[in-house]
Formats: sequence, C-alpha cells, structure tokens
Amino acid sequence: MAVQTVATTADTAASPVDLGPAAALSCRECGHRIPLGPVFACEECFGPLEIAYDYSSYDTEELRRRIEAGPANIWRYAPLLPVPADVAEKPNLNPGWTKLVKADNLARELGVTGGLYVKDDSGNPTHSFKDRVVAQALEAARAFGFTTLSCSSTGNLAGAVGAAAARAGLRSCVFIPHDLEQGKVVMAAVYGGELVGIEGNYDDVNRFCSELIGDPAGEGWGFVNVNLRPYYAEGSKTLAYEICEQLGWRLPDQLVVPIASGSQLTKIDKGLRELIELGLVEDKPYKIFGAQAEGCSPVSTAYKAGHDVVRPQKPDTIAKSLAIGNPADGPYVLDIARRTGGAVEDVTDGQIVDAIKLLARTEGIFAETAGGVTVGVTRKLIEAGVLDPALTTVVLNTGDGLKTLDAVAGTGLTATIRPSLESFRSAGLA
Amino acid sequence: MAVQTVATTADTAASPVDLGPAAALSCRECGHRIPLGPVFACEECFGPLEIAYDYSSYDTEELRRRIEAGPANIWRYAPLLPVPADVAEKPNLNPGWTKLVKADNLARELGVTGGLYVKDDSGNPTHSFKDRVVAQALEAARAFGFTTLSCSSTGNLAGAVGAAAARAGLRSCVFIPHDLEQGKVVMAAVYGGELVGIEGNYDDVNRFCSELIGDPAGEGWGFVNVNLRPYYAEGSKTLAYEICEQLGWRLPDQLVVPIASGSQLTKIDKGLRELIELGLVEDKPYKIFGAQAEGCSPVSTAYKAGHDVVRPQKPDTIAKSLAIGNPADGPYVLDIARRTGGAVEDVTDGQIVDAIKLLARTEGIFAETAGGVTVGVTRKLIEAGVLDPALTTVVLNTGDGLKTLDAVAGTGLTATIRPSLESFRSAGLA
Repeated sequence: MAVQTVATTADTAASPVDLGPAAALSCRECGHRIPLGPVFACEECFGPLEIAYDYSSYDTEELRRRIEAGPANIWRYAPLLPVPADVAEKPNLNPGWTKLVKADNLARELGVTGGLYVKDDSGNPTHSFKDRVVAQALEAARAFGFTTLSCSSTGNLAGAVGAAAARAGLRSCVFIPHDLEQGKVVMAAVYGGELVGIEGNYDDVNRFCSELIGDPAGEGWGFVNVNLRPYYAEGSKTLAYEICEQLGWRLPDQLVVPIASGSQLTKIDKGLRELIELGLVEDKPYKIFGAQAEGCSPVSTAYKAGHDVVRPQKPDTIAKSLAIGNPADGPYVLDIARRTGGAVEDVTDGQIVDAIKLLARTEGIFAETAGGVTVGVTRKLIEAGVLDPALTTVVLNTGDGLKTLDAVAGTGLTATIRPSLESFRSAGLA
Repeated sequence: MAVQTVATTADTAASPVDLGPAAALSCRECGHRIPLGPVFACEECFGPLEIAYDYSSYDTEELRRRIEAGPANIWRYAPLLPVPADVAEKPNLNPGWTKLVKADNLARELGVTGGLYVKDDSGNPTHSFKDRVVAQALEAARAFGFTTLSCSSTGNLAGAVGAAAARAGLRSCVFIPHDLEQGKVVMAAVYGGELVGIEGNYDDVNRFCSELIGDPAGEGWGFVNVNLRPYYAEGSKTLAYEICEQLGWRLPDQLVVPIASGSQLTKIDKGLRELIELGLVEDKPYKIFGAQAEGCSPVSTAYKAGHDVVRPQKPDTIAKSLAIGNPADGPYVLDIARRTGGAVEDVTDGQIVDAIKLLARTEGIFAETAGGVTVGVTRKLIEAGVLDPALTTVVLNTGDGLKTLDAVAGTGLTATIRPSLESFRSAGLA
C-alpha cells in the first residue's frame, strides 16, 4: 500500500484491513470519517485523524471477564484496541501490565491521605511507555503490509522501535541526529536495525522524514509516529485501562500525566471515558493534571495565561523525553485539563532531580527525568492547594532512570572509609 | 537479636520466628538441624546452612490453585518460600513473574527445533534477578528484627538492596570499592541509603564486612548475602517455579544457567526437585548446564578436568556480575551438572558480545553481559553436540543491558547522511 499524507476515501476503501474493533479513521476537528489506512491528516480540513471504534456488540460483564482472563500485558485489552483478535499470538514485545505501586511512603512525605499510586512504566520491555504505542503501530504496519518500521527519535522511541521490529521480523530504520550521546546511540543500535545519523538537529531529522514519506523511496515504510500515528497513539489508552483495573475497576480521582506532544494525556482521557461508556467503571468525575519541565513548558504557559493556543518554545531542560517545544496535542490537553477540573504545571530542572531522588528514597523506584517531572509537579500542586491530598491520586512514571543517569550524576558515596572497624566507627556509621 | 556467624541451638531456640513453611536451618554437608536464625554456617562442621521446609500439609491441586490465584510476582509461591503468609501485604518491590519469551527467531539461528525460551529477568524492579533474592532476605531481616539492610557489592546487588530497603522503610548501608565507575555508584546511590566506599578492592570490602558482622557495631545489621544468606539464596527457586508454571506446569528438558557463586544454579535445581516432589510437574529428567565467562571459569575448568574441587581464579572478564573467582557453591554445581547429564562451559568476551547482539537482533531483548554468557554458551554447546536442539530449552537472562552498556560500546550508526533524499538514496537505504 502506498504511503501518503492525506487519504481519500477511494484510496483506502479498496483495502479493508482487520484491526479488530477499529472501524474507521475520524477527524478530531471536523468529524469526517474515512476507512482505515496509513494516513494521519483529514482530507477535508487537515485535522488529526483518530481511531473510531465499534464497541456496540460488547456486554459489560462478559467483556470484563474476557479482559480479566487475558494475558498479563496490553493484549488483555485487545477488544478495545486497533489490533486483530489474534494479536497475542504474534511475535511482539507484549508490553504493559506494569506495576501500580501503592506509594505510602511518598504519600506521607507529600501529605497525601486519599491514597497515592505510582504507575511505573519503567517495567516495560525497553523500559518506557513507548513499548505500548509502538506495539499498536507494529500491528498497523503488519495490516498495511509495511516491511520497514521507522521513526525519528532522540531517545526512548528509537530503542522501542528497534526492539519491536527485531522481534517481529521486520526491518527497522531509525533516524537520529548524528551527534547524539554515545550511550543513547548504543541503546538504539544494539537491536541490529538500520540506525541512520542525520547531519543536522532534531528538526532537520523530522523534516527529512516527512520528505521521505511523500517520496517513492518511502514506499512500504511505516513511520510509527507519522503515517501510523493514529494507531500508535491509541497505545496510551492502555495506561488508563490498567490503572482502573488495578484499582479494582475504579477510576482514580486525580491523575498526573507528563506532557511531551500531549498525545499520551489525551489518550488516557479517551481511555477513561471509554471505560465509563462501557460500564466497566462507575461514571464519576476525575481530574487530569498535566506536567511539564519549566525549560519546555508551552502548554503550562498557555494554561496559566488562560490561552487556547499554545505558543512554541525552544526546549532547554534535562527532561529530554518531554522536550517538544511545539506539542501537536497541546490545545487538546488544555481542553481536558480545564474540562476535568485539573491543571497544567511545570517544575525546574532542580525540582526534577529532587523529585527523582524523593521517589527513589521513598519507594525504591528509579525514574527517568519524566518521572521526576510528574512527581515534582504533584508536590508543587499539593503545596499550592490545587491537587487535593484527600483524593485518590495516580502519578505516572513513564521511563527508567537508567536511561537518564546524567540527571542524578551528582549522587554518590555518603562516606569513604578504610577497611577497618575503627574507620567505620569514626565515620559515625555504627 | 545478636549478629553471629555460627549458631548454637540455644541461641536461636529462644526466638521462634514466623517464616511460613521454613521449619529449620539444615547443614548441606552433615545434615545437622538448628532453629531458624540469622546464621549461615553449621556449628558442627562449618558447612553451609540452607532452609528445610515443612510442605507436608499441602494437597497438590489445592496448592496449584492457590498459586495460580496469587499475585503476578514471586509471592504467588509464598507457600514454598521462607516468608510469612501475609508477605504480599507488606511493602516490598514485588519482583518476579518476569516474561518467559518464546524465542523462535533465536531458535532458528541456533538450529533449536524443540522449543527455545528466554527467561528474561531484566523485567524485575531494579532490572536483575537480585530483586528475587533480596526480597527473601528482607523478610528474614524483618523476622529477626534487623533495622539495617546491608551487603558488599560491585553492581546489581547494591541497587537491589538500596531499593528494597527504601520501600520497606529500613535503613540500608551498602559497601563498595571506593573507586567503582561513576555510573554504578549513581545507580546504587539514588535510593538514598548509606553508600560507603572502602579504600581497597572487592576482597577488602568483603573482609571488612565479615569483621563488622562479628563486632557489636554490626548489631541489628542484616547482610543479605552473609548472615541472611540461607534465606536470600532461596529466592532463586522462584526462577524454577515460574519457568515451569509458564510452560504450563511442565519441566523444560534443558536449562542454561549462569554461574557466579553457583548459588542460583543450585537453587534452581532445588526448586525443580520440589515441584516434582509436590506433584506440581511430572517426574521426568532435566539437564542443567552452567555458563561462565572464559575470563572467570573456575567451575567450567574443574568440570572439564573431571575434578570435584574448584580451584580459585583471578577474574578478568567483561561479565563482571559473574566474576567470582572462588565460587562458594562450585562443587555443588559440578554435582548437579553431572547428576542431571548437563555440562559446564565458558565463552570468551568476544563471544559474549556477539551473543548479546544476537539476542537483541533476534528477540528485541537487550541483555546484560551475564545474558551474553548464557546465550553464547547455549550456542557453543549446540555446536559441540552437547546440548540437544530437539529438546525444550530455557536460557536465563539475569540482568539488563542498560547496566553494562560498555560491553557493546562498539555498536553504533549504520550510516550517516545529510537530510536529503539524494543523500538517503546514495547511502543505499531505499
């Protein structure tokens, strides 16, 4: 199937695909519907396309039983995702069903009395939430007959795509800025796919990928976060599903979610609303709070100014996995924060580091900088009286501290002694 | 309770503790039994102590149902471990129930036709199998009233102890050589416990820890791999339990297990024998193969020479988590390899790196050097006709590649291009 930016009904109608309950692509702006295809922008208004589902045949209790009897990974929710029914039998990384940690020590430090949980997505196969979204894109790539899985990336996504393609037996070709840190290059290169350095910055990499998608050279290529984006993005719904099921099919009162492009936050909201509509959880209010780093806070800035539009920023923060200066879903995030009674807040790099250490010290969870952002924002919002400590609160950690060791490089030995009891005693360690 | 090296019956009889089915400590050499206590060497013969259980009340099918209804972590096996029945309600890292990956791509490369699986313990909370053993030591520490969790370490164990103690609300004090690489120091320090650098090498650190255990200054200290070792070591049994349950309550025909101290391999054998005795799996033969790095291969060397004793070596290998030159359980490993019809083999550092890349390229699993050792040994044993490719084989990966990035530092970009389609085409990537 040809790669293209904008679909016409005629193009995609010819190729019906089996992606389970996914019924069509629907424009988030104008509602125009087209058949499923590898496209991401509406032919009518150029708005973003998302998946429309047909869940009409589901009986609530039968669906609940089916989910609970499913595998301990995201495929327990296959009936709610754009994947074929037999997805669990295909080779993939089977991400998800990560721990929802009851964080009582952290709760005490922050003064939360209503129950505080950390959804710890560092437990995924390549140790970030990206495995969830790439797994959806992989199924779409298979359905559309793509043979190369691709993306532009500066970090987590590169490894997630490389690993998923390796296991699935697809070729992968990942584009990164040529001067990326050696450690990140190794993490992406070890899976053996093509890893191409682009002489330029991340914007140049992205621009080149868009060119490639429109060119015959890109024929048969699935860019997980471009022409497969509508499918890819749906993977974040599984965070909402898991949180609610792990709470005993209950909605939390408050969620604190990091914002990069904003896609994850919007899909968590979509997932929660679906669970309500399907009757799997009770219909009650919940608040979604967005978290950014001060050095890349376009959505937080717009929220505080009361704006509906998000003005791009040039990122400068240690939270590199959130450093998207022009977040595509920024306006939708603003809508959701305001509609649900949440907020958007940001923290400094220093506060991010403090929050990483706080989470590690209290719960033994070593988070990526993005996890420092959500924990730091949670603390700030409680201190400001915005987040209610008497309500059940879930904070997301979307990645692993081992990938951002530099952020806590100042951490070290608490003492150095000679190998003798005398030296031990005089250091005050007894 | 006082810390001591060798227990007397009188000392420990006074303090009955609830560690579930753990009935006593039993000497592996002379069989002498003493009550449970924080001791590790037999008062009669100075042999190593291990846990003796009372499983007599279990009905096979009831036990199976109880396990299957348990949590998705090691505590589903609480009835078979030295832990209280309510262990799952206490704050700990809940390790285990990691993925058993059906490795069909790797099987094709290696010519395995009988089914090849990778037990991927990089999915544990601190990304190594150490979380399993530390979780047992933590329960023993609680039972004996210890308030400080400690160990000597140069890597994985330091982080596992720091994280477990943080979550459990215990003090931790970890001893490491003072000149350890900065990255490893950060991974251990982030959990906020005491991290003490000892001016000396790893042997000096160990010698100091032994001194501390015998001194009043060590009162109330639980050294997970010294005075809590009998409990700690039992955690590796859960690898055997999970592998069999994940195979549908079936024994694999062959297992390839890394050897550091050799404890893990002996406990996997113990776990398999328990499952047979309990009737949870059929009684059939299985073979256990031990894997070492050539640069630290005391057990492999003894195996090949037909010796019963293991001659210490000075380690020199990139597989640092296996670099124990004088493995305490070496003789038991030799027994098990010979009794089960397995073998012990070693691979070079170059073969370790190749195997890490092979596993990543075929299955999307990025293993620590120890995983490179087991995959490399599996390949070598198949090529030598020692490991039967027609039998069901399970290979262990006990740690995460993110912790040993240096081993694959040579991996990098496959191409560098300018951000243009022309440059893309001339690089042959289309």
